[in-house]
Amino acid sequence: MYKAPVEEIAFTLNHVAGLADAVEIGRFGDLSSDLVSAILEEAGRFATNEMEPLGGIGDTQGARLVDGEVRTPDGWPELYRHWREGGWNGLTAPEAFGGQHLPHMLNVAALEMWNSASMAFALAPTLTMGAIEALVAHGSDALKEKYLAKLVSGEWTGTMNLTEPHAGSDLGVLKTRAERRDDGTYRIFGQKIFITWGEHDAADNIVHLVLARLPNAPAGTRGISLFLVPKFLVNEDGSLGPRNDVFCHSLEHKLGIHGSPTCTMIYGDGVFGGEKGAIGWLVGEENKGLACMFTMMNNARLAVGMQGVAIAEAATQKAVAYAHGRTQGKAPGWSGEGQRGDMSPIIEHPDVARTLITMKALTQGARAICYACAHAIDMSHHMAADEARHWAERAALLTPVAKSFATDVGVEVASLGIQVHGGMGFIEETGAARYLRDVRIAPIYEGTNGIQAIDLVTRKLPLSSGEQVRGFIGELKEIAESVAASNDPAFGETGDRLRAAIAALEAATGWLLEVQAAGRNSDALAGATPYQRLFGLTLTGCYLAKGALIDIGDGGAEKRVALCRFMAENLLAETSALKDRVIAGAASLEAARTVLA
Amino acid sequence: MYKAPVEEIAFTLNHVAGLADAVEIGRFGDLSSDLVSAILEEAGRFATNEMEPLGGIGDTQGARLVDGEVRTPDGWPELYRHWREGGWNGLTAPEAFGGQHLPHMLNVAALEMWNSASMAFALAPTLTMGAIEALVAHGSDALKEKYLAKLVSGEWTGTMNLTEPHAGSDLGVLKTRAERRDDGTYRIFGQKIFITWGEHDAADNIVHLVLARLPNAPAGTRGISLFLVPKFLVNEDGSLGPRNDVFCHSLEHKLGIHGSPTCTMIYGDGVFGGEKGAIGWLVGEENKGLACMFTMMNNARLAVGMQGVAIAEAATQKAVAYAHGRTQGKAPGWSGEGQRGDMSPIIEHPDVARTLITMKALTQGARAICYACAHAIDMSHHMAADEARHWAERAALLTPVAKSFATDVGVEVASLGIQVHGGMGFIEETGAARYLRDVRIAPIYEGTNGIQAIDLVTRKLPLSSGEQVRGFIGELKEIAESVAASNDPAFGETGDRLRAAIAALEAATGWLLEVQAAGRNSDALAGATPYQRLFGLTLTGCYLAKGALIDIGDGGAEKRVALCRFMAENLLAETSALKDRVIAGAASLEAARTVLA
Repeated sequence: MYKAPVEEIAFTLNHVAGLADAVEIGRFGDLSSDLVSAILEEAGRFATNEMEPLGGIGDTQGARLVDGEVRTPDGWPELYRHWREGGWNGLTAPEAFGGQHLPHMLNVAALEMWNSASMAFALAPTLTMGAIEALVAHGSDALKEKYLAKLVSGEWTGTMNLTEPHAGSDLGVLKTRAERRDDGTYRIFGQKIFITWGEHDAADNIVHLVLARLPNAPAGTRGISLFLVPKFLVNEDGSLGPRNDVFCHSLEHKLGIHGSPTCTMIYGDGVFGGEKGAIGWLVGEENKGLACMFTMMNNARLAVGMQGVAIAEAATQKAVAYAHGRTQGKAPGWSGEGQRGDMSPIIEHPDVARTLITMKALTQGARAICYACAHAIDMSHHMAADEARHWAERAALLTPVAKSFATDVGVEVASLGIQVHGGMGFIEETGAARYLRDVRIAPIYEGTNGIQAIDLVTRKLPLSSGEQVRGFIGELKEIAESVAASNDPAFGETGDRLRAAIAALEAATGWLLEVQAAGRNSDALAGATPYQRLFGLTLTGCYLAKGALIDIGDGGAEKRVALCRFMAENLLAETSALKDRVIAGAASLEAARTVLA
Repeated sequence: MYKAPVEEIAFTLNHVAGLADAVEIGRFGDLSSDLVSAILEEAGRFATNEMEPLGGIGDTQGARLVDGEVRTPDGWPELYRHWREGGWNGLTAPEAFGGQHLPHMLNVAALEMWNSASMAFALAPTLTMGAIEALVAHGSDALKEKYLAKLVSGEWTGTMNLTEPHAGSDLGVLKTRAERRDDGTYRIFGQKIFITWGEHDAADNIVHLVLARLPNAPAGTRGISLFLVPKFLVNEDGSLGPRNDVFCHSLEHKLGIHGSPTCTMIYGDGVFGGEKGAIGWLVGEENKGLACMFTMMNNARLAVGMQGVAIAEAATQKAVAYAHGRTQGKAPGWSGEGQRGDMSPIIEHPDVARTLITMKALTQGARAICYACAHAIDMSHHMAADEARHWAERAALLTPVAKSFATDVGVEVASLGIQVHGGMGFIEETGAARYLRDVRIAPIYEGTNGIQAIDLVTRKLPLSSGEQVRGFIGELKEIAESVAASNDPAFGETGDRLRAAIAALEAATGWLLEVQAAGRNSDALAGATPYQRLFGLTLTGCYLAKGALIDIGDGGAEKRVALCRFMAENLLAETSALKDRVIAGAASLEAARTVLA
């Protein structure tokens, strides 16, 4: 059973990602470190005691479509009510609408815990948070007045309606259409697929944000507008009016996250009678819908990265517990203690230990990267002008790495977790397989990891003419030098391994900037995915080292050093191979395309 | 839809793994290359046309336990009958019992095709083949007479009953007991789990091979005996008698291979009335049961390796087809041809092409390794004395690599296949997710890949005092030198990359032999899994090169060179990092164990 690792989370937030220092100098107003601890403790308690026990039933029952209504798994509507009554939905939302205006870092840490307990459940608030963000940034005062308080409290949930059957990664070709009406409203017609929590029974109303195209809009992404379309129309006094012309046509049968309804939504079919067309309100300006979506893209991508961290954490906990309890064979040096006779717990076998420590290191690295990204987002909101711009760039740079590395790690660690369980890992009742099934979507949605890599290489590396990434690499070098300067033998070869990894990252970064400047975009794109992995691995090494350099007297310092050294001496050597693939890999790609003909 | 890649399979069998030369010099009697082609063609036709269409229903329906009987999915009993009537079950079995006594290589190639079409279905004959092998090697004449012909024809199927809840990898602790009776038979009592095709409706009888312990047998693995226990007792005239005291208590609810019933079998519960105890006959000698199992271990492990190859092939085909058809965005250099307007097929995007070519290269490498292993098994049976011993060692060396590398590749490629499909990959109807669900068991059963690694490092490297592996590495060097000597610019850096990879393999091999000689087994075990991967990757490079050096005038030579170069310049660099992990990784492991406390 998952138990929220509150201490580990707090340490990473405070001492690796930078929350403690920011709180110390009052960056977040009167937020105290005590309040931070209290919030994390309480979130951990809720995730462990209330959410985790209902995660499994969400998987086995799944969401069901019954007579046009979606029923979530047994106990989920009550769980959702308890959760939102705890105030968790509005952690970062504006105080004016009932939120707590806390740093994004805290919300990200809480999201990790919700997702570990049940990724399928946690998707509901994740989508609502995105809707809140879009409305705060782009909604008219009237829309904010009418919808925000209910979304912030969680009484209503939100959705994002982007994908259509022919328009996934490429939103420029979507066909859902919107018609202007004289009263300032719009009518929406079309079909959207893969709509997460598009219909359900856990909240009174659902606020759909829908991308659609106006008549005579420019072709492509510059002709897309964003509309707010509530499931139930809302009267002037805030009470719910009649059903709007939108419904859930079907649910997808998915590999995982079964408790999360993935809906095909039909707009404007007139199924409830009356005039056809779902009534919608414009968010932002006409034809600027994609820009509105981009506003919340960073946070949404980071939230998906947290799913990777969350599943990796839960899968690791489960595998470690199993490996302590299961006995098979006799490990080298095992003395046959106690009742277990000759057999060792499998955790004593070097191969199993190596696997579990690898899982730990990757999980902790992914966590640190995601929290550092959240820190950059917070700083971009809380600093003035130039510094804010620097931090916004930092967040932009880290976002694709956080999303892709953490979700790849989620899949990798969940798969290793199955392996540690042996045959039991393949049996669904064990629960290890569910983690792999659930997390397998994370490298895909919110922009596939391939698209993240393209974003990283073509849009993020060139920020400030490459100065942002170069500055960041400079900071990483300082960590490596601090390790080397520590002269602590427990670090082993860590200093040199970090230097080599950072040098590989620097060389690959320079090469990618160079070839793009020379117009060789195809070469840069061919190496984008290995580069992204190189970035994530190097950051993992550096962040583990950053944490290992700090002793806060919690008795964890030695463990952190040992984990860091293991990571450096076992996993960082891959960075050299990755650099090689980035720089030398593209040459062979074109000729090899013939094998795909 | 999967289409058996008969040409690719034939090329690899003949020109990479060595079948053509062996046939040429009459190593397999009057087997001609024409007959080889005809068999592969016909197997491909059956897999593509008859088996593939029923693979999906096996997954969605699954095997069901109804009133104590197991029902296989709709159409499967008929499919099984057609399949065995085609003579496929007895391909390698002795002619005396109705088999065709063909080389194991052909059977392995056919197994690949059955497993691509439906891994769950192919498990039934895979288990039967194992039972045939055990009986041929260790059964008494009476047992052979009574059971072998029916098993070879496939009218009856076989099972292996090893695992118990507390005894998986460690069979020494199993508790199922056998009692001697005066008439020379035994009575078996106990519970076995994870019994593949332990009960079903596709054959008239099921022949269970069961490991059990006699009273007063020595403790551990030296006190285990093997028994034949038929589902229905067999009369002297070969007709079926009454039901034996064994039944399927329950089926597992698994991540994948849903069509394959995974049974908990109860022996000796007396549920059918009469005296308690399942009637069994000893196979081989008392207390030598484990040795009997080991006889067929090589073939069984290779058969699981073929599952990895098979799923990798099927997943690659599916992903390539999808990437040709699906359009999104505009790839660099895409001119917007034809009706598709501005959008490119996603296969044009460098990142997608890189992914698909990686899938191709890994699949082809895993296939070549498995076929080479089958070749070594064949040679060990068809050569005299000393040479046979050499080839038996070669087979023993390659078996853990074939099993582990191919199954890891199966999981990796199936997961990449999902990724290429984007959101559709997560939807079960697409079929890409099924490949990952099915193949995820392959790195686990028949000895986990961690156990394969231990076997490779501790038992296979020391064969002939290390001369077997050193000789093999010498052969690999010749391939690298041939590439270098070819001076073909289309090979790019392949020659140097191969040399470096082989040098890494050689260094790691030397180190592992050295530390084991020095009694540092724990250090060797810590590096076993990275070493196994290093071995598999290096072999992949070498075998792709071996194939690329041959032009048989089939128009495929250029493609093979291009794929080989891609592999060498993109995937082989990892070998250096793996060598590093083997040699330097263990130092940090002990200290890092504290993080698992």
